[in-house]
Amino acid sequence: MKDDFLKDAATRSRVFKLAGISETAVRELIKDLAVEDSASIGYLTVPGEIQVKITVQNDSASLDSKLEAIAAKVQARLEEYIFSCDGEVIEDLVGALLRQRGLTIALAESCTGGLISARLTDLPGSSVYFKGGVVAYSNELKQSFLGVPPEVLEKHSAVSRETALAMAGGIRNRASSDIGLSVTGIAGPDGGAPDKPLGLVYIGLSAASGDLCGRYVFPGNRAGVRQGTVNAALNTVRRFLSKA
Amino acid sequence: MKDDFLKDAATRSRVFKLAGISETAVRELIKDLAVEDSASIGYLTVPGEIQVKITVQNDSASLDSKLEAIAAKVQARLEEYIFSCDGEVIEDLVGALLRQRGLTIALAESCTGGLISARLTDLPGSSVYFKGGVVAYSNELKQSFLGVPPEVLEKHSAVSRETALAMAGGIRNRASSDIGLSVTGIAGPDGGAPDKPLGLVYIGLSAASGDLCGRYVFPGNRAGVRQGTVNAALNTVRRFLSKA
Repeated sequence: MKDDFLKDAATRSRVFKLAGISETAVRELIKDLAVEDSASIGYLTVPGEIQVKITVQNDSASLDSKLEAIAAKVQARLEEYIFSCDGEVIEDLVGALLRQRGLTIALAESCTGGLISARLTDLPGSSVYFKGGVVAYSNELKQSFLGVPPEVLEKHSAVSRETALAMAGGIRNRASSDIGLSVTGIAGPDGGAPDKPLGLVYIGLSAASGDLCGRYVFPGNRAGVRQGTVNAALNTVRRFLSKA
Repeated sequence: MKDDFLKDAATRSRVFKLAGISETAVRELIKDLAVEDSASIGYLTVPGEIQVKITVQNDSASLDSKLEAIAAKVQARLEEYIFSCDGEVIEDLVGALLRQRGLTIALAESCTGGLISARLTDLPGSSVYFKGGVVAYSNELKQSFLGVPPEVLEKHSAVSRETALAMAGGIRNRASSDIGLSVTGIAGPDGGAPDKPLGLVYIGLSAASGDLCGRYVFPGNRAGVRQGTVNAALNTVRRFLSKA
């Protein structure tokens, strides 16, 4: 019995969840890492995330260190996109970081339509760090509620780096929060164009230490683009706070 | 074979989904309706909704009319709470009604934290009738983004009929929408008090023809209260538009 148990237990695995990158691109980035017989990397795409599962098996006692070694390599190459490791929930991580630092956040959402706010407020006690947000679906509301200058919308359009940054700065300013987070994009199924494909999303972050903006093209249908944007946006905050 | 098929087919059922009422209260309201052997009413509570399934069985040809008769009675007694009949999706119904009437809506959410906006914008093309929304978690934002007077918050508190109505009127005014919809409540797990129990939610609606406000106490945990509030709030709009 004991031997059987040990044999069954002789695998170790770790699951990373990623957003903001395609499964093809993930495979390309780490395809050389599981060439040994005793390690494998599996992929699963669900709406809004790509899951990468690393499994190692072995008869020796070195299983944990073997998993650590491969996992560290995978993590180093995909760091920008990983929003969850071994079941971590991204909104929990962001909430814990904000609470630790005593910082507040406010949101300016367009294509996600309130989903990021909804995820952050899933957690009891989130009112300590979550001040609120604006769902600015129309350009009109981007101007009136967030103070995005009409000339920015006219010159660069609603789905642009400039608009994302103006939205993030606008909500940070008007909600008096430490961090302003914004998303603007094309969730589909309509609205794509050659230079602005379906799934194109800009994620902006504004803080006292400076602003940043990422450009993503999310795969999948409307729900996939929206969920992927939520994960990547929350991950933008996590990465910002982890470095800050 | 044919007889067997007919025997199998000799049941008819209908599912109503309700929010804003407890399963106990639902049972009490319609307990007398399924006293016959050939009709049954089943109940299922899931987070945010109570499902009532009416099933009739019969050997005669009168099955459809029998179901209709019982369903009509159930519907009449529970009308205020039913947000879905036979798989209808409440946000689809609301979207279709707004589109038909050429009306726009904007949201002021507190305890739902953006969930109502997120549900309404699940639908492609929702930008035609959805102007946007504000997630006003703090009193500060209820004042600055929605124009809720500080004296209303002070005198009646954030979770009150007066605040809900001020939020609905405020978002309607500031987003220049035809309808303003608001929710403010206590999703828990903390924050309840004897006069303001956990699950207490006010849902306000403002339109040119007038304002209305409903008071609800939703059962369940935080997720249940939030989802129930989303369903009841969207149902408030559906009922308003169906009558208007």
